[in-house]
Amino acid sequence: MIIVMNSNAPQASIDRVVAEIERMGSKAHLSRGQFRTVIGAVGEEGVVDQTHLAALDGVEKVVPIMKPYKLASREFHEDDSVIEVGGGNTPVVKIGGSHAACIAGPCAVESEAMLNRIARHVRDGGATILRGGVYKPRTSPYSFQGLGIEALRWMRACGDELGMPICVEVMDTRQVEQMEKFVDCFQIGARNMQNFDLLREVGKTTKPVLLKRGLSASVKEWLMSAEYVLSQGNRSVILCERGIKTFEDSVRYSLDISSIPVARQWSHLPIIVDPSHAAGKRDWVGSLALAGMAAGAHGVIVEVHYNPAEAQCDGPQALLPEMFKALMEQLRQIAVVTEKEFSVPAELAVASN
Amino acid sequence: MIIVMNSNAPQASIDRVVAEIERMGSKAHLSRGQFRTVIGAVGEEGVVDQTHLAALDGVEKVVPIMKPYKLASREFHEDDSVIEVGGGNTPVVKIGGSHAACIAGPCAVESEAMLNRIARHVRDGGATILRGGVYKPRTSPYSFQGLGIEALRWMRACGDELGMPICVEVMDTRQVEQMEKFVDCFQIGARNMQNFDLLREVGKTTKPVLLKRGLSASVKEWLMSAEYVLSQGNRSVILCERGIKTFEDSVRYSLDISSIPVARQWSHLPIIVDPSHAAGKRDWVGSLALAGMAAGAHGVIVEVHYNPAEAQCDGPQALLPEMFKALMEQLRQIAVVTEKEFSVPAELAVASN
Amino acid sequence: MIIVMNSNAPQASIDRVVAEIERMGSKAHLSRGQFRTVIGAVGEEGVVDQTHLAALDGVEKVVPIMKPYKLASREFHEDDSVIEVGGGNTPVVKIGGSHAACIAGPCAVESEAMLNRIARHVRDGGATILRGGVYKPRTSPYSFQGLGIEALRWMRACGDELGMPICVEVMDTRQVEQMEKFVDCFQIGARNMQNFDLLREVGKTTKPVLLKRGLSASVKEWLMSAEYVLSQGNRSVILCERGIKTFEDSVRYSLDISSIPVARQWSHLPIIVDPSHAAGKRDWVGSLALAGMAAGAHGVIVEVHYNPAEAQCDGPQALLPEMFKALMEQLRQIAVVTEKEFSVPAELAVASN
Amino acid sequence: MIIVMNSNAPQASIDRVVAEIERMGSKAHLSRGQFRTVIGAVGEEGVVDQTHLAALDGVEKVVPIMKPYKLASREFHEDDSVIEVGGGNTPVVKIGGSHAACIAGPCAVESEAMLNRIARHVRDGGATILRGGVYKPRTSPYSFQGLGIEALRWMRACGDELGMPICVEVMDTRQVEQMEKFVDCFQIGARNMQNFDLLREVGKTTKPVLLKRGLSASVKEWLMSAEYVLSQGNRSVILCERGIKTFEDSVRYSLDISSIPVARQWSHLPIIVDPSHAAGKRDWVGSLALAGMAAGAHGVIVEVHYNPAEAQCDGPQALLPEMFKALMEQLRQIAVVTEKEFSVPAELAVASN
Repeated sequence: MIIVMNSNAPQASIDRVVAEIERMGSKAHLSRGQFRTVIGAVGEEGVVDQTHLAALDGVEKVVPIMKPYKLASREFHEDDSVIEVGGGNTPVVKIGGSHAACIAGPCAVESEAMLNRIARHVRDGGATILRGGVYKPRTSPYSFQGLGIEALRWMRACGDELGMPICVEVMDTRQVEQMEKFVDCFQIGARNMQNFDLLREVGKTTKPVLLKRGLSASVKEWLMSAEYVLSQGNRSVILCERGIKTFEDSVRYSLDISSIPVARQWSHLPIIVDPSHAAGKRDWVGSLALAGMAAGAHGVIVEVHYNPAEAQCDGPQALLPEMFKALMEQLRQIAVVTEKEFSVPAELAVASN
Repeated sequence: MIIVMNSNAPQASIDRVVAEIERMGSKAHLSRGQFRTVIGAVGEEGVVDQTHLAALDGVEKVVPIMKPYKLASREFHEDDSVIEVGGGNTPVVKIGGSHAACIAGPCAVESEAMLNRIARHVRDGGATILRGGVYKPRTSPYSFQGLGIEALRWMRACGDELGMPICVEVMDTRQVEQMEKFVDCFQIGARNMQNFDLLREVGKTTKPVLLKRGLSASVKEWLMSAEYVLSQGNRSVILCERGIKTFEDSVRYSLDISSIPVARQWSHLPIIVDPSHAAGKRDWVGSLALAGMAAGAHGVIVEVHYNPAEAQCDGPQALLPEMFKALMEQLRQIAVVTEKEFSVPAELAVASN
Repeated sequence: MIIVMNSNAPQASIDRVVAEIERMGSKAHLSRGQFRTVIGAVGEEGVVDQTHLAALDGVEKVVPIMKPYKLASREFHEDDSVIEVGGGNTPVVKIGGSHAACIAGPCAVESEAMLNRIARHVRDGGATILRGGVYKPRTSPYSFQGLGIEALRWMRACGDELGMPICVEVMDTRQVEQMEKFVDCFQIGARNMQNFDLLREVGKTTKPVLLKRGLSASVKEWLMSAEYVLSQGNRSVILCERGIKTFEDSVRYSLDISSIPVARQWSHLPIIVDPSHAAGKRDWVGSLALAGMAAGAHGVIVEVHYNPAEAQCDGPQALLPEMFKALMEQLRQIAVVTEKEFSVPAELAVASN
Repeated sequence: MIIVMNSNAPQASIDRVVAEIERMGSKAHLSRGQFRTVIGAVGEEGVVDQTHLAALDGVEKVVPIMKPYKLASREFHEDDSVIEVGGGNTPVVKIGGSHAACIAGPCAVESEAMLNRIARHVRDGGATILRGGVYKPRTSPYSFQGLGIEALRWMRACGDELGMPICVEVMDTRQVEQMEKFVDCFQIGARNMQNFDLLREVGKTTKPVLLKRGLSASVKEWLMSAEYVLSQGNRSVILCERGIKTFEDSVRYSLDISSIPVARQWSHLPIIVDPSHAAGKRDWVGSLALAGMAAGAHGVIVEVHYNPAEAQCDGPQALLPEMFKALMEQLRQIAVVTEKEFSVPAELAVASN
């Protein structure tokens, strides 16, 4: 950690900073320049409290040298993590390293029939994990809020029947225990990326966690949220880039494509993209999905509906089944260029061998 | 609601939109321009589902005319709401209309002694509501997370002794029931502004809710979150602008000063500013507080510490007691210009009469 | 154009808006809802002044229906434009439709020798247009500002020798006349995207214009700037996405990948990406370039240097020649997926026939 | 300057960085931590090239310690600068330190009669400098572009008659020489904040320069642009905060109120606010103006029109004369709180003594 003093900081302030660094068990190195004094705190960075030093008199700024996350960092885990989803009543699907996967399904589960129909469509198209919301985070209290536990049972039954692990969003700490019995993968939504109690609760479970990036979270803050889950013992976190808030208003959110190479350089965790919520409009979903894979993502999560105009949630961004199928073909080709391979649905796997 | 069709939308698409509008119980008015057809849905807007229409073939965009919130809207409640905080063991403090208030205290309660000392300082300076965190939302799982229920008891005792209602952040739905017995006002932090389950839970209580604006929430989304609380029956919501994420990196967050006149025009709810978290550095806190009041806010919430270098949380932004006192003097003068008056601490009120 | 009146707008205000619309030669259609009156202005939109209507009493907002650009719009030019660069002393390189191209070279021309060396490297790697700055927009007045006209002569000679059209940034209206004699393509930098006098001047020339997107320009504003050039008679504009300012600070600018499908849907103009300035660090340049092509771009512009540590400008983002060559291989594969083909250097073209 | 090496940087890379620092005439101090080596370059920072070091192998990041601007910095000029505007045929108006001023007038000069009428209104209201655009930067090439030189003559005549210095926007390097004969203060618009050739040209004149902040410029970049002007010999720069691009869409631009205390801490230059362009709607202009003054600004620049619906440019944000007058009264009261005083129009000054 490096402490830059104000240009006119008195000696007493410099002495105080040095004393504090040493009190915290680190060593202080002074560099006196023509205009300023800079103090380096050498030793294990975790023991030095950045905020404390920044609050001392005469300190202009404190520059941390180490990353603030550990378990999520590639410095402590050099190779790509490969996360396994499913494996109970369904095959295991791997995500990470050279393993890519497509997660698809409806935005929200609206009925058992619609779920089963869409699930078959996405499985036929090449998805290997089924998504579907049962509790929905809606900006308006007057919008459809999801069907809850009943829809969760349908998801489980449908996933088991089709051999697809299921991924479902959890919104409230009180839902974790019950949901853990049903799901193969918890999804944490963008608006809950810094709901720290929720992160801790899913961190105590044994199921993988798909962690969407917050709408205004830096890559560093995102990895800090992953660290919350990892620090509770759950080492299976999948990052998901889904777009950030910017001034551009043609799309719902701006897919931050650079977060993919950055997160991959800083962390060993796998990362996928959600082009549906970023685009907000089905016309643009395909281009964003392809871009995500080309940038190095380990897969995509997309929303599909056979009749978007009937969807109770996010219809405008849902792909039609035939669009989804065509997109998967292109995604497979892109994956080859970035040295990844998509998992294939169970029976098809047999067939293609 | 206005539906703009693509320039090449076929008649069948136009017919379908008209049919859907009528099915939803509204009337459709067509305007055929040289290049496009525009369809107005006339009637009560709430009955028409914007997302549904946007998902239909041939629709370019849907423009809502009505605000998506009702109970938070000034159209349905013309006069400023005045919210009352406290009244059990403490005096009532009013916020809204011509009533301004200053909420102050430590960022986090670190010990009973430090709490009591800071509380006296802020009361002497002119604060009438005491703040202090007992559960802390921290970006790192390795940072101080708050002292919990024990600190809550200290807050209650301290508030009672000094005649100051207390305002404490709630982070998890599981904390609401217990905290309701202690606090005079719930605070919802910026990162939880769209934690919809939490909003619903505090909406079922009888205590006022201080709702901080999310780091990337538009004013409209913020009012939608207020609507979540209001729709559960709790009509006492105080908005709090605390800065948004922008590209500017000199400050922690950019205080969005224009949100004050905008929110006041659109909503009857009172609004205060938090200059401490926006600035991130005590040098700039005062200027932002003054700006907030000048822009029409109903008060401020600021962090104070007698020894910031010892603070376990956000020391660099804590005002020293003497800085706080001087700031309150300036705030009172600004309040006069915008036709507001700060509440004064109970005994001082007697003295000044 | 649609004019939404305030909920309490008096009849006189409504009448005034109607009168103004008719005065401007358009027809007014009223829709009276339960809470508001909405007025549609039907006719050719260009004749109605949005700002004027928005300034009238009682008007809440004005919603334009038509795009504000014409010549840049796909509505008026359905097929992709194919822009031809070069053709004097060099072969013609096509960009647009199924034609992709790679523009590469040093950030700034530092000497004739370095230019010739880098130009050979990029040509060997597969670039068909040579870039190189001779006037440099630098945030600091104390940084290297470019070698000017002498460097321009070297660029021309080098391009002629290698059979590569040259693309050079113009910064000032006073440079346009002289530069036109040398360059095959003008580049307008991001900071000059709304330097309207400069846009008009290059719009009067006969050379193609590579128009970089401004750091905070919406796609719509970008197309309006293209319209400035087009409206002067120059129909050869190539859009270039190079990243926007967001809160994310890991990269220099956030490459806005969604601008590619959006601009392609709204406009017939070709679009390329600049991954170098967005990433700011060579490690991430390749991923962004691949993402851009996968999203549908018509090519890339990248910076290359054989010894980045010696570069006087933007060394950290320059690709090494061997990195560039490997990237081009991947880009060609991605291009196949999105049905495009890169132009190839002249002699190689002969060889491959 | 501090150079942080990658955690796995080999000794050869470290040696190279040290050698380069010494070659540039600075001294290198090594600190070897458990995980990384950090190298401090001690000496005059200007001599060390940050970009060069950042491009070397094994370097993770380079952290500058000194501010990149000198003449604009408070470190080199401790006291507030006081800029004098006018003094030829008009009184001198001071801006900076305890001197505040109000600049007002129409957005664009549309005719001599309208100019004279508005000028009288703003002078009566309390403005002491007259603004009015004669060349207008418009996003659309089809919008009104200003009346040019003829309007400039009207401005000069009007300013002389009323005793008000005039402030006029310059857009193109080719306009500088002629305009210098007429204006008392050049205005550089937000879109030209990084038009470096234009900055240099006005830097060579003897007239003060009102430098608007770019829509996506950090405070640091803004001061770097001021440095361009100052470095040419012109020491009279007035900063003007006018709002930045954010995700918030209720206003045209988000007035970045924190830039005022930040710029004042970092620089000695005076700073004013433009609430009109930020708000985009006259309802909110007053609140933003008051906030700006409360935050420590040295004045405001506002647009006024007696009939906004007739304005050819930005009518919705123009204040009516009576609104302007009332606002000035409030601004004077706020100025007292922040220890500033507004200049008063010449004759009124006599009258009030």
